[in-house]
Amino acid sequence: MPAYRRLQVDERRRRLLELGAELFTRHAYADLSMAAIAREAGISKALLYHYFPSKQAYFVATLERQAAEVAALIEIDASLPPVEQLTRALDAFLGWVEVNAEGYGKLLEGATTHAEVRELVDQVRAGTADRILAGLVPDGPAPPPLRAAVHGWLWFMDGALMDWLRHRDIERPQLLGLLLGTLLGAVTASGTPGLAERLGAAG
Amino acid sequence: MPAYRRLQVDERRRRLLELGAELFTRHAYADLSMAAIAREAGISKALLYHYFPSKQAYFVATLERQAAEVAALIEIDASLPPVEQLTRALDAFLGWVEVNAEGYGKLLEGATTHAEVRELVDQVRAGTADRILAGLVPDGPAPPPLRAAVHGWLWFMDGALMDWLRHRDIERPQLLGLLLGTLLGAVTASGTPGLAERLGAAG
Repeated sequence: MPAYRRLQVDERRRRLLELGAELFTRHAYADLSMAAIAREAGISKALLYHYFPSKQAYFVATLERQAAEVAALIEIDASLPPVEQLTRALDAFLGWVEVNAEGYGKLLEGATTHAEVRELVDQVRAGTADRILAGLVPDGPAPPPLRAAVHGWLWFMDGALMDWLRHRDIERPQLLGLLLGTLLGAVTASGTPGLAERLGAAG
Repeated sequence: MPAYRRLQVDERRRRLLELGAELFTRHAYADLSMAAIAREAGISKALLYHYFPSKQAYFVATLERQAAEVAALIEIDASLPPVEQLTRALDAFLGWVEVNAEGYGKLLEGATTHAEVRELVDQVRAGTADRILAGLVPDGPAPPPLRAAVHGWLWFMDGALMDWLRHRDIERPQLLGLLLGTLLGAVTASGTPGLAERLGAAG
Protein backbone atom coordinates (compact mmCIF):
# COMPACT_ATOMS: atom_id res chain seq x y z
CA MET A 1 0.00 0.00 0.00
CA PRO A 2 1.49 3.37 -0.95
CA ALA A 3 2.37 5.60 1.98
CA TYR A 4 -0.29 8.19 1.22
CA ARG A 5 -3.05 5.51 1.13
CA ARG A 6 -1.83 4.18 4.50
CA LEU A 7 -2.04 7.69 5.88
CA GLN A 8 -5.58 8.11 4.63
CA VAL A 9 -6.62 4.83 6.21
CA ASP A 10 -5.06 5.73 9.56
CA GLU A 11 -6.58 9.18 9.47
CA ARG A 12 -10.05 7.85 8.69
CA ARG A 13 -9.75 5.30 11.47
CA ARG A 14 -8.72 8.03 13.89
CA ARG A 15 -11.69 10.16 12.89
CA LEU A 16 -14.08 7.24 13.18
CA LEU A 17 -12.81 6.56 16.69
CA GLU A 18 -13.27 10.20 17.62
CA LEU A 19 -16.80 10.09 16.29
CA GLY A 20 -17.42 6.86 18.18
CA ALA A 21 -16.38 8.37 21.52
CA GLU A 22 -18.96 11.07 20.90
CA LEU A 23 -21.74 8.80 19.63
CA PHE A 24 -21.42 6.25 22.44
CA THR A 25 -21.59 9.09 24.95
CA ARG A 26 -24.69 10.65 23.39
CA HIS A 27 -26.57 7.42 22.72
CA ALA A 28 -27.16 4.17 24.54
CA TYR A 29 -25.13 1.33 23.05
CA ALA A 30 -28.25 -0.65 22.16
CA ASP A 31 -29.77 2.30 20.29
CA LEU A 32 -26.84 2.75 17.88
CA SER A 33 -26.77 0.72 14.69
CA MET A 34 -23.84 0.37 12.28
CA ALA A 35 -26.11 1.96 9.67
CA ALA A 36 -26.68 5.01 11.87
CA ILE A 37 -22.96 5.25 12.65
CA ALA A 38 -22.06 5.08 8.95
CA ARG A 39 -24.63 7.79 8.25
CA GLU A 40 -23.15 10.04 10.94
CA ALA A 41 -19.67 9.41 9.55
CA GLY A 42 -20.82 10.16 6.00
CA ILE A 43 -19.47 6.87 4.66
CA SER A 44 -21.07 3.66 3.42
CA LYS A 45 -21.94 0.88 5.81
CA ALA A 46 -19.64 -1.39 3.80
CA LEU A 47 -16.69 0.93 4.37
CA LEU A 48 -17.47 1.16 8.08
CA TYR A 49 -17.44 -2.65 8.28
CA HIS A 50 -14.13 -2.59 6.46
CA TYR A 51 -12.66 -0.73 9.45
CA PHE A 52 -14.60 -2.47 12.21
CA PRO A 53 -16.10 -5.94 11.83
CA SER A 54 -18.92 -5.25 14.31
CA LYS A 55 -20.49 -2.58 16.49
CA GLN A 56 -18.89 -4.28 19.46
CA ALA A 57 -15.44 -4.11 17.87
CA TYR A 58 -16.03 -0.45 17.08
CA PHE A 59 -17.11 0.28 20.63
CA VAL A 60 -14.16 -1.53 22.17
CA ALA A 61 -11.79 0.28 19.79
CA THR A 62 -13.14 3.69 20.86
CA LEU A 63 -12.61 2.69 24.49
CA GLU A 64 -9.09 1.49 23.79
CA ARG A 65 -8.30 4.78 22.14
CA GLN A 66 -9.58 6.67 25.16
CA ALA A 67 -7.62 4.41 27.49
CA ALA A 68 -4.48 5.18 25.47
CA GLU A 69 -5.31 8.89 25.66
CA VAL A 70 -5.59 8.68 29.44
CA ALA A 71 -2.40 6.62 29.70
CA ALA A 72 -0.51 9.26 27.70
CA LEU A 73 -1.98 12.01 29.83
CA ILE A 74 -0.88 10.47 33.11
CA GLU A 75 2.61 9.51 31.93
CA ILE A 76 4.57 11.18 34.71
CA ASP A 77 8.26 11.93 35.09
CA ALA A 78 9.65 8.74 36.64
CA SER A 79 12.40 10.62 38.49
CA LEU A 80 9.86 12.19 40.85
CA PRO A 81 9.16 10.56 44.23
CA PRO A 82 6.44 7.87 43.96
CA VAL A 83 3.84 9.86 45.91
CA GLU A 84 4.43 12.90 43.72
CA GLN A 85 4.09 10.79 40.56
CA LEU A 86 0.89 9.26 41.83
CA THR A 87 -0.58 12.58 42.88
CA ARG A 88 0.07 14.10 39.48
CA ALA A 89 -1.18 11.08 37.59
CA LEU A 90 -4.36 10.97 39.69
CA ASP A 91 -4.97 14.66 39.28
CA ALA A 92 -4.54 14.40 35.51
CA PHE A 93 -6.88 11.43 35.48
CA LEU A 94 -9.54 13.26 37.49
CA GLY A 95 -9.24 16.19 35.09
CA TRP A 96 -9.87 13.80 32.20
CA VAL A 97 -12.85 12.21 33.96
CA GLU A 98 -14.26 15.66 34.68
CA VAL A 99 -14.13 16.60 31.01
CA ASN A 100 -15.43 13.20 29.91
CA ALA A 101 -17.85 12.73 32.80
CA GLU A 102 -20.75 11.44 30.78
CA GLY A 103 -18.67 9.00 28.81
CA TYR A 104 -16.87 7.70 31.88
CA GLY A 105 -20.11 7.18 33.77
CA LYS A 106 -21.44 5.24 30.81
CA LEU A 107 -18.21 3.23 30.71
CA LEU A 108 -18.50 2.17 34.35
CA GLU A 109 -22.11 1.21 33.80
CA GLY A 110 -21.28 -0.48 30.51
CA ALA A 111 -18.62 -2.51 32.30
CA THR A 112 -21.43 -4.21 34.14
CA THR A 113 -23.43 -5.19 31.10
CA HIS A 114 -20.99 -5.91 28.25
CA ALA A 115 -18.43 -8.65 28.68
CA GLU A 116 -15.99 -6.89 26.31
CA VAL A 117 -16.19 -3.60 28.19
CA ARG A 118 -15.72 -5.41 31.44
CA GLU A 119 -12.65 -7.12 30.05
CA LEU A 120 -11.19 -3.80 28.98
CA VAL A 121 -11.90 -2.23 32.38
CA ASP A 122 -10.31 -5.27 34.05
CA GLN A 123 -7.26 -4.96 31.81
CA VAL A 124 -6.85 -1.29 32.58
CA ARG A 125 -7.27 -1.98 36.31
CA ALA A 126 -4.72 -4.81 36.21
CA GLY A 127 -2.24 -2.68 34.26
CA THR A 128 -2.66 0.24 36.65
CA ALA A 129 -2.29 -2.05 39.67
CA ASP A 130 0.94 -3.45 38.20
CA ARG A 131 2.32 0.04 37.65
CA ILE A 132 1.49 1.14 41.17
CA LEU A 133 2.90 -2.06 42.68
CA ALA A 134 6.08 -1.72 40.61
CA GLY A 135 6.41 1.79 42.00
CA LEU A 136 5.92 0.58 45.56
CA VAL A 137 8.00 -2.59 45.42
CA PRO A 138 10.44 -2.13 42.54
CA ASP A 139 12.47 -5.25 43.16
CA GLY A 140 10.10 -8.10 43.47
CA PRO A 141 6.64 -9.47 43.68
CA ALA A 142 4.41 -7.53 46.04
CA PRO A 143 3.35 -9.24 49.29
CA PRO A 144 -0.22 -10.57 48.92
CA PRO A 145 -1.87 -8.06 51.32
CA LEU A 146 -0.28 -5.16 49.44
CA ARG A 147 -1.46 -6.60 46.13
CA ALA A 148 -4.99 -6.91 47.55
CA ALA A 149 -4.77 -3.36 48.92
CA VAL A 150 -3.84 -1.86 45.56
CA HIS A 151 -6.41 -3.90 43.64
CA GLY A 152 -9.07 -3.02 46.17
CA TRP A 153 -8.11 0.63 45.95
CA LEU A 154 -8.71 0.70 42.19
CA TRP A 155 -12.22 -0.52 42.93
CA PHE A 156 -12.48 2.14 45.61
CA MET A 157 -11.57 4.74 43.03
CA ASP A 158 -14.31 3.65 40.64
CA GLY A 159 -16.86 3.52 43.46
CA ALA A 160 -15.90 7.01 44.64
CA LEU A 161 -15.89 8.30 41.06
CA MET A 162 -19.38 6.90 40.49
CA ASP A 163 -20.54 8.67 43.63
CA TRP A 164 -18.80 11.86 42.51
CA LEU A 165 -20.29 11.79 39.03
CA ARG A 166 -23.73 11.02 40.39
CA HIS A 167 -23.86 13.80 43.01
CA ARG A 168 -21.35 16.35 41.77
CA ASP A 169 -21.09 17.88 45.23
CA ILE A 170 -17.40 17.30 45.95
CA GLU A 171 -14.58 19.58 44.78
CA ARG A 172 -11.90 17.88 42.73
CA PRO A 173 -9.04 18.62 45.21
CA GLN A 174 -11.15 17.08 47.98
CA LEU A 175 -11.72 13.97 45.89
CA LEU A 176 -8.02 13.80 45.08
CA GLY A 177 -7.26 13.97 48.81
CA LEU A 178 -9.77 11.25 49.52
CA LEU A 179 -8.27 8.95 46.89
CA LEU A 180 -4.66 9.53 47.94
CA GLY A 181 -5.42 9.31 51.65
CA THR A 182 -7.32 6.09 51.16
CA LEU A 183 -4.49 4.55 49.16
CA LEU A 184 -2.00 5.48 51.87
CA GLY A 185 -4.43 4.07 54.44
CA ALA A 186 -4.79 0.83 52.50
CA VAL A 187 -1.05 0.48 51.90
CA THR A 188 -0.38 1.14 55.58
CA ALA A 189 -3.10 -1.32 56.62
CA SER A 190 -1.52 -3.98 54.39
CA GLY A 191 1.28 -4.06 56.94
CA THR A 192 4.06 -4.11 54.37
CA PRO A 193 7.20 -3.24 56.31
CA GLY A 194 8.98 -0.01 55.45
CA LEU A 195 6.44 1.09 52.89
CA ALA A 196 4.74 3.89 54.78
CA GLU A 197 8.16 5.45 55.33
CA ARG A 198 9.10 5.04 51.67
CA LEU A 199 5.92 6.78 50.66
CA GLY A 200 6.43 9.52 53.16
CA ALA A 201 2.90 8.80 54.27
CA ALA A 202 3.38 10.73 57.46
CA GLY A 203 4.69 13.83 55.71
CA MET B 1 -55.29 -21.94 53.45
CA PRO B 2 -55.10 -24.11 56.56
CA ALA B 3 -52.11 -23.46 58.76
CA TYR B 4 -50.44 -26.80 58.03
CA ARG B 5 -50.65 -26.22 54.26
CA ARG B 6 -49.08 -22.77 54.69
CA LEU B 7 -46.29 -24.39 56.66
CA GLN B 8 -45.70 -26.94 53.95
CA VAL B 9 -45.52 -24.22 51.32
CA ASP B 10 -43.05 -22.15 53.34
CA GLU B 11 -40.96 -25.19 54.08
CA ARG B 12 -40.84 -26.27 50.45
CA ARG B 13 -39.88 -22.74 49.42
CA ARG B 14 -37.12 -22.71 52.02
CA ARG B 15 -35.78 -26.03 50.75
CA LEU B 16 -35.93 -24.90 47.16
CA LEU B 17 -33.93 -21.80 48.05
CA GLU B 18 -31.35 -23.91 49.84
CA LEU B 19 -31.08 -26.16 46.83
CA GLY B 20 -30.77 -23.10 44.59
CA ALA B 21 -27.86 -21.70 46.56
CA GLU B 22 -26.10 -25.00 45.98
CA LEU B 23 -27.04 -25.43 42.32
CA PHE B 24 -26.06 -21.90 41.31
CA THR B 25 -22.72 -22.41 43.00
CA ARG B 26 -22.05 -25.73 41.27
CA HIS B 27 -23.29 -24.75 37.82
CA ALA B 28 -23.08 -21.71 35.59
CA TYR B 29 -26.34 -19.79 35.49
CA ALA B 30 -26.72 -20.32 31.75
CA ASP B 31 -26.29 -24.10 32.09
CA LEU B 32 -29.17 -24.56 34.53
CA SER B 33 -32.67 -25.04 33.19
CA MET B 34 -35.89 -24.97 35.18
CA ALA B 35 -36.39 -28.57 34.06
CA ALA B 36 -33.03 -29.60 35.53
CA ILE B 37 -33.76 -27.71 38.76
CA ALA B 38 -37.15 -29.40 39.11
CA ARG B 39 -35.46 -32.76 38.52
CA GLU B 40 -32.88 -32.06 41.23
CA ALA B 41 -35.65 -30.96 43.59
CA GLY B 42 -37.69 -34.06 42.84
CA ILE B 43 -40.79 -32.05 41.94
CA SER B 44 -42.60 -31.30 38.70
CA LYS B 45 -41.60 -28.36 36.56
CA ALA B 46 -45.14 -27.01 36.98
CA LEU B 47 -44.80 -26.99 40.75
CA LEU B 48 -41.41 -25.26 40.52
CA TYR B 49 -42.99 -22.58 38.35
CA HIS B 50 -45.72 -22.25 40.94
CA TYR B 51 -43.08 -21.14 43.43
CA PHE B 52 -40.89 -19.13 41.06
CA PRO B 53 -42.17 -17.64 37.80
CA SER B 54 -38.76 -17.85 36.08
CA LYS B 55 -35.19 -19.04 36.52
CA GLN B 56 -34.19 -15.43 37.05
CA ALA B 57 -36.76 -14.98 39.82
CA TYR B 58 -35.51 -18.21 41.40
CA PHE B 59 -31.90 -17.07 41.21
CA VAL B 60 -32.65 -13.64 42.67
CA ALA B 61 -34.68 -15.26 45.46
CA THR B 62 -31.75 -17.52 46.42
CA LEU B 63 -29.50 -14.47 46.54
CA GLU B 64 -31.98 -12.52 48.64
CA ARG B 65 -32.16 -15.39 51.06
CA GLN B 66 -28.38 -15.44 51.35
CA ALA B 67 -28.30 -11.67 51.80
CA ALA B 68 -30.83 -12.01 54.64
CA GLU B 69 -28.71 -14.79 56.14
CA VAL B 70 -25.65 -12.55 56.07
CA ALA B 71 -27.61 -9.59 57.46
CA ALA B 72 -28.81 -11.72 60.39
CA LEU B 73 -25.29 -12.99 60.95
CA ILE B 74 -23.77 -9.54 61.19
CA GLU B 75 -26.51 -8.03 63.34
CA ILE B 76 -24.31 -6.70 66.12
CA ASP B 77 -25.10 -5.38 69.58
CA ALA B 78 -25.80 -1.68 68.95
CA SER B 79 -24.55 -0.68 72.40
CA LEU B 80 -20.96 -1.49 71.46
CA PRO B 81 -18.65 1.28 70.21
CA PRO B 82 -18.98 1.77 66.41
CA VAL B 83 -15.52 0.41 65.61
CA GLU B 84 -16.20 -2.69 67.70
CA GLN B 85 -19.54 -3.24 65.96
CA LEU B 86 -17.95 -2.86 62.57
CA THR B 87 -15.06 -5.16 63.40
CA ARG B 88 -17.40 -7.90 64.56
CA ALA B 89 -19.77 -7.47 61.62
CA LEU B 90 -16.88 -7.57 59.15
CA ASP B 91 -15.35 -10.60 60.78
CA ALA B 92 -18.67 -12.43 60.68
CA PHE B 93 -19.08 -11.45 57.06
CA LEU B 94 -15.60 -12.69 56.13
CA GLY B 95 -16.40 -15.93 57.88
CA TRP B 96 -19.51 -16.29 55.78
CA VAL B 97 -17.63 -15.48 52.58
CA GLU B 98 -14.96 -18.01 53.50
CA VAL B 99 -17.58 -20.76 53.86
CA ASN B 100 -19.44 -19.64 50.74
CA ALA B 101 -16.37 -18.68 48.75
CA GLU B 102 -17.39 -20.24 45.47
CA GLY B 103 -20.89 -18.81 45.58
CA TYR B 104 -19.70 -15.34 46.54
CA GLY B 105 -17.14 -15.26 43.75
CA LYS B 106 -19.86 -16.26 41.31
CA LEU B 107 -22.10 -13.55 42.76
CA LEU B 108 -19.52 -10.82 42.19
CA GLU B 109 -18.97 -12.06 38.66
CA GLY B 110 -22.70 -12.46 38.11
CA ALA B 111 -23.20 -8.88 39.20
CA THR B 112 -21.36 -7.85 36.09
CA THR B 113 -23.47 -9.85 33.67
CA HIS B 114 -27.02 -10.00 35.00
CA ALA B 115 -28.92 -6.76 35.53
CA GLU B 116 -30.98 -8.28 38.35
CA VAL B 117 -27.94 -9.51 40.24
CA ARG B 118 -26.30 -6.15 39.82
CA GLU B 119 -29.38 -4.46 41.21
CA LEU B 120 -29.34 -6.73 44.23
CA VAL B 121 -25.63 -6.10 44.83
CA ASP B 122 -26.24 -2.36 44.46
CA GLN B 123 -29.11 -2.53 46.94
CA VAL B 124 -27.03 -4.41 49.49
CA ARG B 125 -24.16 -1.94 49.01
CA ALA B 126 -26.47 1.05 49.42
CA GLY B 127 -28.08 -0.45 52.52
CA THR B 128 -24.71 -1.24 54.06
CA ALA B 129 -23.42 2.25 53.25
CA ASP B 130 -26.47 3.77 54.94
CA ARG B 131 -25.93 1.67 58.05
CA ILE B 132 -22.28 2.60 58.29
CA LEU B 133 -23.01 6.28 57.67
CA ALA B 134 -25.77 6.25 60.28
CA GLY B 135 -23.24 4.78 62.71
CA LEU B 136 -20.70 7.47 61.87
CA VAL B 137 -23.01 10.49 61.70
CA PRO B 138 -26.08 9.55 63.73
CA ASP B 139 -27.74 12.94 63.62
CA GLY B 140 -27.81 14.05 60.07
CA PRO B 141 -26.90 13.58 56.47
CA ALA B 142 -23.26 12.63 55.95
CA PRO B 143 -20.98 15.24 54.36
CA PRO B 144 -20.46 14.36 50.67
CA PRO B 145 -16.78 13.32 50.96
CA LEU B 146 -17.67 10.95 53.80
CA ARG B 147 -20.51 9.50 51.75
CA ALA B 148 -18.11 8.98 48.81
CA ALA B 149 -15.54 7.43 51.16
CA VAL B 150 -17.97 4.87 52.54
CA HIS B 151 -19.40 4.02 49.12
CA GLY B 152 -15.93 3.72 47.68
CA TRP B 153 -14.88 1.50 50.56
CA LEU B 154 -17.66 -0.98 49.84
CA TRP B 155 -16.23 -1.26 46.34
CA PHE B 156 -12.78 -1.64 47.89
CA MET B 157 -14.10 -4.53 49.94
CA ASP B 158 -15.43 -6.34 46.90
CA GLY B 159 -12.21 -5.74 44.99
CA ALA B 160 -10.10 -7.01 47.88
CA LEU B 161 -12.43 -9.98 48.36
CA MET B 162 -12.15 -10.89 44.68
CA ASP B 163 -8.36 -10.77 45.01
CA TRP B 164 -8.55 -12.84 48.20
CA LEU B 165 -10.83 -15.47 46.68
CA ARG B 166 -8.72 -15.68 43.55
CA HIS B 167 -5.33 -16.10 45.25
CA ARG B 168 -6.21 -17.47 48.69
CA ASP B 169 -2.84 -16.41 50.03
CA ILE B 170 -3.95 -13.97 52.75
CA GLU B 171 -5.00 -14.96 56.26
CA ARG B 172 -8.44 -13.84 57.30
CA PRO B 173 -7.24 -11.65 60.22
CA GLN B 174 -4.84 -9.90 57.83
CA LEU B 175 -7.67 -9.24 55.41
CA LEU B 176 -9.84 -7.97 58.23
CA GLY B 177 -7.06 -5.58 59.24
CA LEU B 178 -6.69 -4.40 55.66
CA LEU B 179 -10.41 -3.70 55.35
CA LEU B 180 -10.72 -1.91 58.69
CA GLY B 181 -7.52 0.06 58.23
CA THR B 182 -8.58 1.16 54.79
CA LEU B 183 -11.98 2.28 56.03
CA LEU B 184 -10.35 4.30 58.79
CA GLY B 185 -7.94 5.72 56.21
CA ALA B 186 -10.79 6.64 53.88
CA VAL B 187 -12.88 8.17 56.66
CA THR B 188 -9.90 10.15 57.85
CA ALA B 189 -9.07 11.25 54.30
CA SER B 190 -12.65 12.46 53.85
CA GLY B 191 -11.72 15.26 56.25
CA THR B 192 -14.91 15.00 58.29
CA PRO B 193 -14.18 16.94 61.49
CA GLY B 194 -14.17 15.01 64.74
CA LEU B 195 -14.74 11.64 63.13
CA ALA B 196 -11.31 10.12 63.55
CA GLU B 197 -11.54 10.86 67.28
CA ARG B 198 -15.03 9.39 67.51
CA LEU B 199 -13.82 6.24 65.84
CA GLY B 200 -10.77 6.09 68.03
CA ALA B 201 -8.83 5.69 64.81
CA ALA B 202 -5.59 6.56 66.52
CA GLY B 203 -6.08 4.01 69.29
